[in-house]
Amino acid sequence: MLSNQFQNGIESAKLTWARLPNSEEDEAEEVGVSRKEDGNRVESLDYEVVENHAYREEQAQRGKLYVGYYVGVKWFFALLIGIGTGLAAVFINISVENFAGWKFSLTFSLIQKSYIAGFLLYILINLVLVLSSAFIITNFAPAAAGSGIPEIKGYLNGVDTHGILLFRTLIGKIFGSIGSVGGGLALGKEGPLVHTGACIASLLGQGGSTKYHLSSRWLQFFNSDRDRRDLVTCGCAAGVAAAFRAPVGGVLFALEEVTSWWRSQLMWRVFFTSAIVAVVVRTAMGWCKSGKCGHFGSGGFIIWDISGGQEDYSFEELLPMAVIGVIGGLLGALFNQLTRYITSWRRNYLHKKGNRVKIIEVCLISVITSVISFGLPLFRKCSPCPEADPNFPIECPRPPGMYGNYVNFFCGKDKEYNDLATIFFNTQDDAIRNLFSAKTIHEYSAQSLLTFLVMFYTLAVVTFGTAVPAGQFVPGIMIGSTYGRLVGMFVVSFYKKLNIEEGTYALLGAASFLGGSMRMTVSLCVIMVEITNNLKLLPLIMLVLLISKAVGDAFNEGLYEEQSRLRGIPLLESRPKYEMRKMQAKEACGNQKVVYFPRVIKVADVVSILKSNNHNGFAVIDHTRSGETLVIGLVLRSHLLVLLQSKVDFQHSPLPSDTGGGSFPIRHNFSEFVKPASSKGLSIHDIRLGPDDLEMYIDLAPFVNRSPYIVPEDMSLTKVYNLFRQLGLRHIFVVPRASRVIGMITRKDLLIEENEGPATVELQSTSVRDWLRNRRHAARNGEAELPLLNGLLVAQ
Amino acid sequence: MLSNQFQNGIESAKLTWARLPNSEEDEAEEVGVSRKEDGNRVESLDYEVVENHAYREEQAQRGKLYVGYYVGVKWFFALLIGIGTGLAAVFINISVENFAGWKFSLTFSLIQKSYIAGFLLYILINLVLVLSSAFIITNFAPAAAGSGIPEIKGYLNGVDTHGILLFRTLIGKIFGSIGSVGGGLALGKEGPLVHTGACIASLLGQGGSTKYHLSSRWLQFFNSDRDRRDLVTCGCAAGVAAAFRAPVGGVLFALEEVTSWWRSQLMWRVFFTSAIVAVVVRTAMGWCKSGKCGHFGSGGFIIWDISGGQEDYSFEELLPMAVIGVIGGLLGALFNQLTRYITSWRRNYLHKKGNRVKIIEVCLISVITSVISFGLPLFRKCSPCPEADPNFPIECPRPPGMYGNYVNFFCGKDKEYNDLATIFFNTQDDAIRNLFSAKTIHEYSAQSLLTFLVMFYTLAVVTFGTAVPAGQFVPGIMIGSTYGRLVGMFVVSFYKKLNIEEGTYALLGAASFLGGSMRMTVSLCVIMVEITNNLKLLPLIMLVLLISKAVGDAFNEGLYEEQSRLRGIPLLESRPKYEMRKMQAKEACGNQKVVYFPRVIKVADVVSILKSNNHNGFAVIDHTRSGETLVIGLVLRSHLLVLLQSKVDFQHSPLPSDTGGGSFPIRHNFSEFVKPASSKGLSIHDIRLGPDDLEMYIDLAPFVNRSPYIVPEDMSLTKVYNLFRQLGLRHIFVVPRASRVIGMITRKDLLIEENEGPATVELQSTSVRDWLRNRRHAARNGEAELPLLNGLLVAQ
Repeated sequence: MLSNQFQNGIESAKLTWARLPNSEEDEAEEVGVSRKEDGNRVESLDYEVVENHAYREEQAQRGKLYVGYYVGVKWFFALLIGIGTGLAAVFINISVENFAGWKFSLTFSLIQKSYIAGFLLYILINLVLVLSSAFIITNFAPAAAGSGIPEIKGYLNGVDTHGILLFRTLIGKIFGSIGSVGGGLALGKEGPLVHTGACIASLLGQGGSTKYHLSSRWLQFFNSDRDRRDLVTCGCAAGVAAAFRAPVGGVLFALEEVTSWWRSQLMWRVFFTSAIVAVVVRTAMGWCKSGKCGHFGSGGFIIWDISGGQEDYSFEELLPMAVIGVIGGLLGALFNQLTRYITSWRRNYLHKKGNRVKIIEVCLISVITSVISFGLPLFRKCSPCPEADPNFPIECPRPPGMYGNYVNFFCGKDKEYNDLATIFFNTQDDAIRNLFSAKTIHEYSAQSLLTFLVMFYTLAVVTFGTAVPAGQFVPGIMIGSTYGRLVGMFVVSFYKKLNIEEGTYALLGAASFLGGSMRMTVSLCVIMVEITNNLKLLPLIMLVLLISKAVGDAFNEGLYEEQSRLRGIPLLESRPKYEMRKMQAKEACGNQKVVYFPRVIKVADVVSILKSNNHNGFAVIDHTRSGETLVIGLVLRSHLLVLLQSKVDFQHSPLPSDTGGGSFPIRHNFSEFVKPASSKGLSIHDIRLGPDDLEMYIDLAPFVNRSPYIVPEDMSLTKVYNLFRQLGLRHIFVVPRASRVIGMITRKDLLIEENEGPATVELQSTSVRDWLRNRRHAARNGEAELPLLNGLLVAQ
Repeated sequence: MLSNQFQNGIESAKLTWARLPNSEEDEAEEVGVSRKEDGNRVESLDYEVVENHAYREEQAQRGKLYVGYYVGVKWFFALLIGIGTGLAAVFINISVENFAGWKFSLTFSLIQKSYIAGFLLYILINLVLVLSSAFIITNFAPAAAGSGIPEIKGYLNGVDTHGILLFRTLIGKIFGSIGSVGGGLALGKEGPLVHTGACIASLLGQGGSTKYHLSSRWLQFFNSDRDRRDLVTCGCAAGVAAAFRAPVGGVLFALEEVTSWWRSQLMWRVFFTSAIVAVVVRTAMGWCKSGKCGHFGSGGFIIWDISGGQEDYSFEELLPMAVIGVIGGLLGALFNQLTRYITSWRRNYLHKKGNRVKIIEVCLISVITSVISFGLPLFRKCSPCPEADPNFPIECPRPPGMYGNYVNFFCGKDKEYNDLATIFFNTQDDAIRNLFSAKTIHEYSAQSLLTFLVMFYTLAVVTFGTAVPAGQFVPGIMIGSTYGRLVGMFVVSFYKKLNIEEGTYALLGAASFLGGSMRMTVSLCVIMVEITNNLKLLPLIMLVLLISKAVGDAFNEGLYEEQSRLRGIPLLESRPKYEMRKMQAKEACGNQKVVYFPRVIKVADVVSILKSNNHNGFAVIDHTRSGETLVIGLVLRSHLLVLLQSKVDFQHSPLPSDTGGGSFPIRHNFSEFVKPASSKGLSIHDIRLGPDDLEMYIDLAPFVNRSPYIVPEDMSLTKVYNLFRQLGLRHIFVVPRASRVIGMITRKDLLIEENEGPATVELQSTSVRDWLRNRRHAARNGEAELPLLNGLLVAQ
């Protein structure tokens, strides 16, 4: 019984078009009446096809139970995305930590005998790891290169980049980032994790990968663009939550940075996904505590706890903190600018020469990175260990093979450490932990920090955009915390107060650089708080972020926007351009010709039109009884291609195809019209049609989007832009100014009460429900009773 | 020079209408041509009036410098709002803490001699405080009763409630909440603080209160609805940030709970305001540390630090935590239901009897509350003090006159304490601190907690909706933490583990009750984390919130939605109703008659139409040269009333009033058309017109909104709803299906590059800029060159 109802619900979600109860039509309807006569009927049918985000609600109009089931499945998928992304993050972290730990322990044990041998081994291991990563990317999953966030942002903004959500991209991203991060390049695994989460979400949404026969029919449930985008949003949040162990930060990242439009229902589900990720990651870490995960231990998942650090701050400190914000804005903007130039140079010259060049490039950078990170500390004189503070015992030098401050590297005496090696010859996670650490004043010399800053900044800029998965979060934190600590050192020596910690300034520096480069605010702030597990510095982080973003904005756009533009992803910014204020809607579509389709069209004509231009949407027109032309809707190129390929809708007669009663035969499954995320979609050149096919006709009426959004020709383009972006549209019709108004919808008209509340009487004299019932009744009795525009035309 | 430019900018922001450069018009234009002839001209003018949110951008189209100035002022106002709200919060907190501290210390010193005298004094002080609050509310600022959040939510959703943002409301809210909270009622000061922040923002936005001559001309800068709403959003965030010292929570509260539509620029400014509040509050607290603020000390601003508590949790604990979530959902939903019944009963019966009844009611509740909170602990047997843990010394009983656990109240021996008095006979802040406290296992007996839960729940339900300012946050936390601690007690005795803290369960209980009642997720989660200063419990809080919200949603709506509905505030929910899926746009405006105005209309007709109905918007029509009717826009009742009142636009001729060149004489200052937030606005009955006036004409063309949003008649109502809500509209025209399409706007058309990037060439073969220039050029050469719909009409 229950399952039957579900079945009915699912059936009804297929491509059916309901006729609205309109008695006038029922009489006039006959099969085969001339097109001119039934033109009017077309006007009041309600077939609504795929493209637009509200269609699902129309489709699923049968059965409340089905809606409940549908919502339940959405939540179940949110759960699966959380678990999947959490597990992927755990896998990547364990692998990276093990590779890196194994690499460092091997190198350390070898340099006890020979520094040369250790040097060569270190270079070799890094090279192998990076090479494997570059090989995977170039030969198997080219879309997995880079961070993936610009592409995901584009996808959620409405622009598909080919291949970003494929199964092979997911695999390439996971294994590629293990190689590139494990290989010690100046990049992070956080951006790729966001992409990984998005891939997992998208693959789940389309029921697995069809290419690799991993798909399940049962899972092919979400075949609308909107549902997929919602899932991908969940995936992004899960990725951030997993990467930083920052569930709230994940939600906010998805909200602020990634999505273009947002509903509170979605927020609620994204929140759930993030919570699941937090639980999964925590469970895995608990499991690893017993030592089952090899080198994976205190490193790995980021929590750079600074709880032992500075608790309070005085007003004089606000000045150096503001300086950090300014530096962050400047260096961040510079980073964006440099990476933009280098990336565009790479794309236009270097990477056009083929995969071999890409691999050589990555290997070269790997060798350089290894040489610098191993070689530079060699030239640095070792410092004597500080006297141990009995309250905060920190071993110096740290015991071999463990994580911690005060690395003994190429030092003569036993009680010495190499400060440059402490940050350079280490995994990035540990380096950051050391930079953030409290109670370690004077651990680093200004010279070392400056050297590291310059070298690492250069490496990060150069590495960005190579053919490996690469995130910018961790390198950004490295750079920022270095100059932050540098400023902190000056503050300590200048203010001579005991409670100032250099680690706090390092944290603020990290926030400032990320703010200056990525230009996020709330989400970044929450992420910083969550990864340092310290709320006390929140106002300071906010302050620094505000300054660095403002400074950065004075120079260029955020990192992701710049990169999106480079990749040719046309993101619609949240703010319309200044020029639009002076423009009208019709100017925006100035010298483009609108291509019209008649309702019933010859197949040959369809083909020739599709070949003659590359528009994606076409207006469909028909004629009313009185011979007037009438726009009946919008048909998409992709739908036309599906129709041409399947051929089932071809007919011999140039007359409309209704089987009576205004309904059309159901020949298509709804999902046929959904472009799979994993392919480029059909092209007109892929379709083979015989001469017989070309002579046939096709009735487009069932396949048009009956009510695309429309704007009058002289509407300000700013308004059009807001409409377009806020609703996530793809096409808007610009129509002439109307000659009459059928009605005006205000807030009251949209307040439909499901249950009568006892108190709503205060608002309206009669219950809204009765009023609505009357109204519906009126509508049912045909158009004659509707106010026909001679309503109250006064004083003419 | 500079100031001149500013002046020009401000001038141009006044009500002017630009003519678009259209050479064809220039020739045809003459003063006094017949209306029929210049009908076409009207079509391409671009006058855009007040109502709609995008208009400001159109208005400020002159001068980029002006835009910069304008943005700067917005930021300055955000700063002022932050400072103002922070100071208001500090003032309220210091006052409340001093009144309460003084009350308790007086009572405690008196009960050393006589419990009866202490009892009477306690009742009397509470009564006086509450009475003063009720007196202020009933006689001075009736709109300041309750929490104010539903009204603010309504305001930001687009519904003005009279008087909520007045200066007197602000004053009433501040002093009223000092009285009601200081008087020990079962309510909080957090909701009122949000309202206070909103009032401050709104008053700043309109340049002070005109009624009390506190306004400044210089400040009257923001006279659009949109800017005011933005400021009020900032104010709400500032209120939460100040109330809980939770800046990020404030931003998220404004985002999730309050606003209906949201832009990332606004988020950025709201974030700034919150940061300012945090700085102000922190500064004030630092200043008070030296003892200058009387009793204001460790209490006051909420930070219920639980950092000494439970750090870890095991899997078995998830079950009792889920149980807490379920209890929270049930009790929260019950709370909403009960308060709804009681409020509606109050509104319909009790409060209709006048202010005296309201005051008597509040006083009665105050006396009952005092009797219960003083009397009940008297019946409770005292418990012996636990043995002191040398690691965590907590004094037992606490020293008199200080804050802390283990209150000695009516106990015989010295080393005893009264557990009911510890939570009941205390300020709410301290009671919560005691409930959250760690290392105090077995402090409370189950019996005491249960007694307290039942009594306080009842008191909170009864107090809700009386004529005093009242927030629900702190009472909710009280209720939740009580049953949370109760569950925690069972967990401690059942699992018999040492690391389980009852305080942690109390925190989860608080989160669950708030989630079950207010149904917020992300913002509540962040607020809970910020007020407890502990991130470790974040995943648990998320879990509990998810469960309690889901359980609560099964029964009824959130507290604020219920209350909004009771108050007759028609909020548009984020999700369209189920019924809308089957409806079309024209059904929603079914039997309403559209009222048309001709472009030039007799004043008498305007008056009679305005009197004959209560529509707020009217369609304005005109005729083209060919005699066709054409809808030229929407005119608002409020604007018509302004025109009728000022009379300056009256003319003797029934012909259009253009002074040539398509421009209209500027007779109005832009701000005249903005309804002040502090008044009900004009009514048609307020306007006195002589018989001469009534015989005159008025040309509406300059005052219509030329391009209101339009939808075709058969668009699905779900789509219409989304359009309406996402863009924050007030009127939508339903128009017939168009007979032709002038153009189609897609993403590419909206991507206008301000600067040519080197890489955009990848996307388009020619630069976007050139293409746009051509396009604009085409538009300038008159309509003849535009694609006239015979474009590509194929296969007809």
